[in-house]
Amino acid sequence: TGDKKNGRTLVYTCNGCHGVPGTNNAYPQYPVPKIAGQNEQYLISALHEYKAGDRTHPTMMAQAQSLSDQEIEDIAAYLSSIAPK
Amino acid sequence: TGDKKNGRTLVYTCNGCHGVPGTNNAYPQYPVPKIAGQNEQYLISALHEYKAGDRTHPTMMAQAQSLSDQEIEDIAAYLSSIAPK
Repeated sequence: TGDKKNGRTLVYTCNGCHGVPGTNNAYPQYPVPKIAGQNEQYLISALHEYKAGDRTHPTMMAQAQSLSDQEIEDIAAYLSSIAPK
Repeated sequence: TGDKKNGRTLVYTCNGCHGVPGTNNAYPQYPVPKIAGQNEQYLISALHEYKAGDRTHPTMMAQAQSLSDQEIEDIAAYLSSIAPK
């Protein structure tokens, strides 16, 4: 089970591009998905796919490879618990 | 440019799994992402990746392959215009 409190700390890194919980996406014309309020299991699945290289995006692969399975669960628990925006 | 009105018609197919604009996701424990209010360019990019087979998911590949580039833009225009939920 994910630890929301630790997830909240970990998503600091995500904010630069995903803008959570900031005001706006840093790249409004670039396809950066909104992740606040996203489905928890989808977030876990997506991060594992990036980590394994099954889903390819250089930045996200590097980020996911730096995360443990527990940290992925923590991030997903936090992001899925906050309101979509 | 996407045609929101046509997109609204096209997303009828998406509702079964993604639950837009229905009440709940059909598979709460399965990793189906929320797509209402998602970033327009991300939606276009994701559908093209599924269509090209660069992003793999049997159902989504089949769906995307049935869509024209214009229809993908229409869907993205509609989904990005509605409130996240």
